Amino acid sequence: MKMRKSKLGRGVAVVGAGMSRFGSFPDKTSRDLFVEAFSEAVGSVERGMEARDIQAIYVGNYSSDLLEGQGHLAPIMADWVGLAPKPATRVECACASGAVALRQAILAIASGLYDIVLAGGVEKMTNLPTEKVTDVLATASDTLYEGTAGITFPGVFAITASAYFARFGATQEHLMKVAIKNHNNGALNPKAQFGSIAEIMKRRLERAKQKGEPLPAWRDEMDFLRDPRANPVVAWPLRLFDCSPISDGAACLVLVAEDLAKNLSDSPVYVIGTGQGSAGALHTRQELYVSPAARAAAKEAYEMAGVKPEDIHLAEVHDCFTIAEITATEDLGFFEVGKGAKAAEEGVTALKGTRPINTSGGLKSKGHPVGATGIAQVMEIWHQLRGEAGQRQVPRKDLRLGLTHNLGGTGGTCVVHIFERR
Amino acid sequence: MKMRKSKLGRGVAVVGAGMSRFGSFPDKTSRDLFVEAFSEAVGSVERGMEARDIQAIYVGNYSSDLLEGQGHLAPIMADWVGLAPKPATRVECACASGAVALRQAILAIASGLYDIVLAGGVEKMTNLPTEKVTDVLATASDTLYEGTAGITFPGVFAITASAYFARFGATQEHLMKVAIKNHNNGALNPKAQFGSIAEIMKRRLERAKQKGEPLPAWRDEMDFLRDPRANPVVAWPLRLFDCSPISDGAACLVLVAEDLAKNLSDSPVYVIGTGQGSAGALHTRQELYVSPAARAAAKEAYEMAGVKPEDIHLAEVHDCFTIAEITATEDLGFFEVGKGAKAAEEGVTALKGTRPINTSGGLKSKGHPVGATGIAQVMEIWHQLRGEAGQRQVPRKDLRLGLTHNLGGTGGTCVVHIFERR
Repeated sequence: MKMRKSKLGRGVAVVGAGMSRFGSFPDKTSRDLFVEAFSEAVGSVERGMEARDIQAIYVGNYSSDLLEGQGHLAPIMADWVGLAPKPATRVECACASGAVALRQAILAIASGLYDIVLAGGVEKMTNLPTEKVTDVLATASDTLYEGTAGITFPGVFAITASAYFARFGATQEHLMKVAIKNHNNGALNPKAQFGSIAEIMKRRLERAKQKGEPLPAWRDEMDFLRDPRANPVVAWPLRLFDCSPISDGAACLVLVAEDLAKNLSDSPVYVIGTGQGSAGALHTRQELYVSPAARAAAKEAYEMAGVKPEDIHLAEVHDCFTIAEITATEDLGFFEVGKGAKAAEEGVTALKGTRPINTSGGLKSKGHPVGATGIAQVMEIWHQLRGEAGQRQVPRKDLRLGLTHNLGGTGGTCVVHIFERR
Repeated sequence: MKMRKSKLGRGVAVVGAGMSRFGSFPDKTSRDLFVEAFSEAVGSVERGMEARDIQAIYVGNYSSDLLEGQGHLAPIMADWVGLAPKPATRVECACASGAVALRQAILAIASGLYDIVLAGGVEKMTNLPTEKVTDVLATASDTLYEGTAGITFPGVFAITASAYFARFGATQEHLMKVAIKNHNNGALNPKAQFGSIAEIMKRRLERAKQKGEPLPAWRDEMDFLRDPRANPVVAWPLRLFDCSPISDGAACLVLVAEDLAKNLSDSPVYVIGTGQGSAGALHTRQELYVSPAARAAAKEAYEMAGVKPEDIHLAEVHDCFTIAEITATEDLGFFEVGKGAKAAEEGVTALKGTRPINTSGGLKSKGHPVGATGIAQVMEIWHQLRGEAGQRQVPRKDLRLGLTHNLGGTGGTCVVHIFERR
């Protein structure tokens, strides 16, 4: 059957955003974190709105089932923010759950059914021990094929890194450059879980001094990251500082139909492209370092937006591991396949580079409460495009087009959104 | 802010439907069941289509996380039916997951983004022991409030029944009438897990005879259901035959933009109303036997469709327990609050009554593989409105308007859809 070319029936804009701090909060549950993010998002709408103006909510969450023993999360969130009996829907696509929830919220407005919709995400992870969380995350792989091979996520991305290194001659030092950059950005983000690696190194040196231990000979962050005592191997070639942390957190966005955006906001950020792709288990891939889901998502989003990779000014990409940032920048067409590592090394992707990536600190330093990640990525782009990113503001006057890239599982899902300030 | 009245930007029709048999299938996984349902759905489109014409899929699933140790189910389903890298999204709202997935598929088409979308649902439950499945289902309640009170689902609906009995003078015998009706309908459905209670009784009698045991004095199904050895109390006043079973199964629908429906189908069934509601835990209810989520969902769906409860010719409602069918028919406005039990007793809701309810056998007899239920309900309406329901066809020449009602958790989510044959 021949299809006509599809596009959104109505435009959509982001007019509010909020998030909890990301980190470890033993006394808070998902609903506490969600309420914090919700309140900040609703409060951020400049021209004022009531929470009750929101007509439906979408909640991205990976597995409160396994992490908190709580399924059916969405109506609980709706109730706690005072929105019941309005429609509340949980969407799950592993680590891409947040962006998939956002996408459903966009489609709900584009459908004509609703004018104002909240897209949120939440995950509460730190109440379980690390090895248990790693097992929970591993259920986002294909447990019949990948799972039986003993794979957990550090292993999956270690395989990707090994294949990338073998093919393109990149090294662990390229990955370290990505970690240093993202931690430097995170140090400028008050909501981030971790600060710079230089600070972490400094604290370790002070502690060693206080304890009267022999002082390690670290002159800079690279020395620190090369030291296997400071930065041990988790799954070769990935080390501790190549891995994003386990985090608690929530994030929310207020979305509105384009024609109503100026009623609510002085400076709406418009959604001009949305794309989503899927893929089977790792054994279905042609190249381990190329994500078919990401390629499909990017293609759909670029075509809808009518822009090319080189038009994008900045991006938040899914750096669950440092290698994943490099391959993401290639899947998005920012760099040729095999050239992403060098671009990171040369500072192209730094805050003051020509193509800033993960100015928020990324998952690596800001934290990765799984369901919240895809939403928090958009919050960063929203702040940047509105010139509100404070110390980490990208120093570029014509900042106009931003992109988010949110990956789930072993690449089973990828979602790409493109945003414009007009 | 004042809102304009919202409606779908584009109409949507169902042009294909398929399901696996519901039951216990120890050798099958979720993906096997989903492929069966998918193949039947695509094959049912009369004017022919290729699976590859489908542009996106939505998968309703309650908790493959806890039941199969498999999160991130949607891209696996997309891969197994050959649709990767197209967008594949899992939607979860407990037992209403199927209908919520359907609703997102409808919005995706109405948004203008896609023309043909698959809405499916699946659950694989029987590989765990019953008490474990009951615990998994209990995570669909509010585990902080309802869960700490020790509540599992038979208990929740027992509370509803107790409150209803106390207020309106109904009895266990009213519930038994609902069970008999639905099992009679299920006996006419080749995909149903169970047949009629008369058959079940007959088999028990034969078995007793073969074993030389004293024969119970059951003259009819009511005698059988009154006998606590045949029908023991699960949670007073609910007995075994008031409860829907634990089931494996999958179901799929092919949805298409209204303007393209006649290209694919000789007899499309149009979605004319969709509504979804949410609610907090049981303690937020005014009356235990009235569901605010169902009321909100019904109101939204009726308003969109421009029809009233009395216009609906037949409905599939969420009879996870017999009492839930009675309260559903009241929440939907078919009967006044407190009158549903009597309507069931008098045969109004029977296959040949004036308002047939659950002609498929309902969850009670057809089975309740959680994520598939909301989709399978629509398949029954689709068959009935097209005059294809075989032995269980509602004998009414002007059959035109059907409704589905899919409830999740302790009433945290409810989704109502209204369908029309033109």
